[in-house]
Amino acid sequence: MNVTQSDSESYLKKKQFFNQLLTVYGRKPVLEALEDPATKVYRLHLAESNRPGGIIADIIKLAENKQAEILYHDRQALSRISRNSKQDQGVAVDLVCSGYQDYRDFLNSPASQHAEIIALDRITNPQNLGMIIRSVCAGSAKALLLPEKGCAKLDALVIKASAGTLFRAPILRCQNLAQTLAEFRENGSSIYGLSSHAPHTLGEIPHTGAKVFVLGNETDGVSDEVARECNQLVSIPMNNGVESLNVAVTASLLAFRGQL
Amino acid sequence: MNVTQSDSESYLKKKQFFNQLLTVYGRKPVLEALEDPATKVYRLHLAESNRPGGIIADIIKLAENKQAEILYHDRQALSRISRNSKQDQGVAVDLVCSGYQDYRDFLNSPASQHAEIIALDRITNPQNLGMIIRSVCAGSAKALLLPEKGCAKLDALVIKASAGTLFRAPILRCQNLAQTLAEFRENGSSIYGLSSHAPHTLGEIPHTGAKVFVLGNETDGVSDEVARECNQLVSIPMNNGVESLNVAVTASLLAFRGQL
Repeated sequence: MNVTQSDSESYLKKKQFFNQLLTVYGRKPVLEALEDPATKVYRLHLAESNRPGGIIADIIKLAENKQAEILYHDRQALSRISRNSKQDQGVAVDLVCSGYQDYRDFLNSPASQHAEIIALDRITNPQNLGMIIRSVCAGSAKALLLPEKGCAKLDALVIKASAGTLFRAPILRCQNLAQTLAEFRENGSSIYGLSSHAPHTLGEIPHTGAKVFVLGNETDGVSDEVARECNQLVSIPMNNGVESLNVAVTASLLAFRGQL
Repeated sequence: MNVTQSDSESYLKKKQFFNQLLTVYGRKPVLEALEDPATKVYRLHLAESNRPGGIIADIIKLAENKQAEILYHDRQALSRISRNSKQDQGVAVDLVCSGYQDYRDFLNSPASQHAEIIALDRITNPQNLGMIIRSVCAGSAKALLLPEKGCAKLDALVIKASAGTLFRAPILRCQNLAQTLAEFRENGSSIYGLSSHAPHTLGEIPHTGAKVFVLGNETDGVSDEVARECNQLVSIPMNNGVESLNVAVTASLLAFRGQL
C-alpha cells in the first residue's frame, strides 16, 4: 500500500513537471532562450543532420552550462518534438517554466479562492499575446489562463513581444476556454467578460474576491460560447468617443488595476 | 485702434486654426482619413499628374462631401506640401484636428492649472506612438505633449495603430521637449519622468495637481536633457522580476490611473 501511495505521489510530481515544459524551436529563439540566465532547461533536441559549429556550437555550450540533457534525433523524430518541421531548423528545447501550471492544479490550490486572473479568448496576434504575457507577469493579477486552442502559438514572435517574460510568467494551461471557465465558476470565481458596449463598467467590480476577467478576439471580442459562461459583461469607460482599446492595453489595465 | 485689435484677434484665430491642421499623404491613408465620419477636411491637394478615376475619384468624392477645397499642383509643389515625395503618391490632405493645440495656448488656458498630461521623449516606433495616442485619447489624461523633433512622424502606420483616434486626440505640439517642460514647470506643473529603476514609485504621486508624466525612448528611456527638467523620476513596481513594460502599456496605465 505504501508503495502505491508513493508511486501515485511520484506520478503527480512527474505530471506537474511535464505541465511546466514549454518547447521552443528555431535556432535564434532557442539561443535567446538559453542566453536568459533565468531559464531552466530540461532537454535540448538536435537533428543529427545539423552541421556542427557556429550557432549550433553556441547552443550546445549554453545548454551544457545549464546542465541540460542533449539528445540527437533524425529529422522526422525532431519534427514530432517541435511540431513545426518548417521552422524548427533542426533545433528544439524543452524549457522548465516554473510559472506554468495545469489550471486544475490551480483550482485545487488555496490561491484559487481569492485570486484575480486574466483569461484569453482567441487572441490571434502574436504581438498582442506577447505584450499581454509581459504585462500580466509584471502586474498584480495572479495568472494568465491560456487555452491551447484558438490563441496564437507560443513561438518566436510571442517570445520577442513578451521581452522574454514568457519563460517565467504565471500561465495556467487549459484546452477549451468555455468549459474551463465553467469549472472556475463552480469553484467560486466570478467571470467578467470585457465588452466595449456593456452597460456595466469595470469600476463597479469589487477589488477583492476570486474572479476571472476574459479578453476576447481583436476583431470580434468575446465569443458567444464564452460570453454564456460570464456572470457579467463589463466595459471600460472611454473619453473622446473612442470605441475600444488595444487588447494588450486592456490586459495591462486589468493586470495593474487598483495598484497605481 | 479698434481695427488693430480686431486684426490681432483674427490673426490669433487664424494661427489657432493652422495649429490644428495635420497633413496626411498617400492614397490609402488619405482615403481612410476621409472615410472617417468624424474627420474635418480643410484642403485636398492633388498632383496634376494623377490619372483620374479609381481611388482618386473616390477621394475627390469624399472630399466634396466634406466640403473641402480641392487644389491641383505640379509634382514639385505637392512634394512641398506632403514633405514626403517618395510616399505621397500625388495626394495629400489637410485635416482639421480640433483636439490639436499649440502647447502655449494650453499653458495660457485655465485647464493647465490642474490638468495631468503625458509627454513623449523620442518614441520612435510608429506602432507604439499610435497605441499611445489611442490610449491617451480614451483615458482621463488631459492631453498628449508631442514634440516635432525626435518622435516618429505622424504617418500611415501611426494612424493605423491609433485606430483613427489620431484625428481627434487632444495633442499639444511643441518643438523641443526639454525647453517646453521647463515652461510647464514655471507654469506650476510638476514633471515626473518614468524610469524603471527609480526608487520612488508612481503610487506615491498624488492624483490631483497639475503634472506632466514623461515617457522616454523604447531602448534608453528618458534622455539626460529631459531628466534634468523633471522634479522626480518614478517607477512602476513590477512582479516576477520583470524589468520594464512596453512604453504604450505604461502610457495607458498613466492615462487611466485611478480610474478603474
